[in-house]
Amino acid sequence: MSIRSSAGTKRVRLSPEERRLQLITLGAEMLADRSLEEVSVDDIAKQAGISRGLLFHYFASKQEFHEAIARHVSTEFFTAIMPNRDLSLFDMLRDSIERFVDYATEHSASYRSVLRGPASVTPDMADYVNETRGAIADLIVSELPLPPEDPDLARLTLAIRGWIAFVEETILTWMVEKPIGREDLVDLLVESLPALALSPALIAALRG
Amino acid sequence: MSIRSSAGTKRVRLSPEERRLQLITLGAEMLADRSLEEVSVDDIAKQAGISRGLLFHYFASKQEFHEAIARHVSTEFFTAIMPNRDLSLFDMLRDSIERFVDYATEHSASYRSVLRGPASVTPDMADYVNETRGAIADLIVSELPLPPEDPDLARLTLAIRGWIAFVEETILTWMVEKPIGREDLVDLLVESLPALALSPALIAALRG
Repeated sequence: MSIRSSAGTKRVRLSPEERRLQLITLGAEMLADRSLEEVSVDDIAKQAGISRGLLFHYFASKQEFHEAIARHVSTEFFTAIMPNRDLSLFDMLRDSIERFVDYATEHSASYRSVLRGPASVTPDMADYVNETRGAIADLIVSELPLPPEDPDLARLTLAIRGWIAFVEETILTWMVEKPIGREDLVDLLVESLPALALSPALIAALRG
Repeated sequence: MSIRSSAGTKRVRLSPEERRLQLITLGAEMLADRSLEEVSVDDIAKQAGISRGLLFHYFASKQEFHEAIARHVSTEFFTAIMPNRDLSLFDMLRDSIERFVDYATEHSASYRSVLRGPASVTPDMADYVNETRGAIADLIVSELPLPPEDPDLARLTLAIRGWIAFVEETILTWMVEKPIGREDLVDLLVESLPALALSPALIAALRG
């Protein structure tokens, strides 16, 4: 059986997994201009050309649907910037930052909303955003050749956490007016991590 | 005539200016756990021991009252960190950052809420926060001995904007667990600005 949307366009039949992803993706796109609570089940079902009842076949409740959207947005972003471990440390940093800039640029409206706008204050969404920031910080700290008892570790961990906010804000500001080119932006972000967080001795050790 | 609160405590009569400030301050304290829209005129009037009608004697509308609260919070913060121009550039930076940390610590609940919580998404409040960030960035750029046509100015301005987010996030994270002492935090924040934003040549010129 093929499914037709309300506009009568012929639709390919989706597997349950594909349908779930389609509904979540439609929901994630809506975060561009509204909070998670304002993502309407009726609107999503209409856009997907299915009934409200069928949507609840895939998600037990509106709350579960919203939670799935929040998780999806965070996972998609974190996956997009995952480091390529075939590269040297500094190349790995540049490569991940380039993908960070690309992700933010390609999802600019929802990225801004999730970090600063209506979508940023739902506890679910805010928790996922915070967990993602923590996961990025842990990832960076784990790459550094520091013993766990290093006395600078507490300061370093704090600085890296602050650096993630630096990257987010710099990209958000850059996207509005693009005062410098993309390559200059990437340079600034790459150079900022050692500048903010690392001691000269640690930088020398990393450069080997 | 002396005004008594609902609890019967004797109150000193306030001048119109003092009353206005009292109402705004009560509203600003409420931002610790709610958005600007949720600051209730009835609750504020009750806390101040005045009638709802009298509150509207000082503010033409609920909207105007909320706007006054948002403006007050931003102005109070900006005033708290204003640089002391009797100091040298680096001492001025340290002195302002110490007051930044003190302000955030003394207003921790409302500071967090205005930047990250329920109070952060009201357009009025978000606009004031953004304007304050812009004003801090302008203040810093204006202190630097750079000609307006300097080719690095666009990158520097962007970096300083990101640095403000670094300071905010680092302080917010620090306030939760205090992983390092206050002096170490101040050192980290002070050192981060030249490390991040300035070229070695500019740092040498400033120290000169």
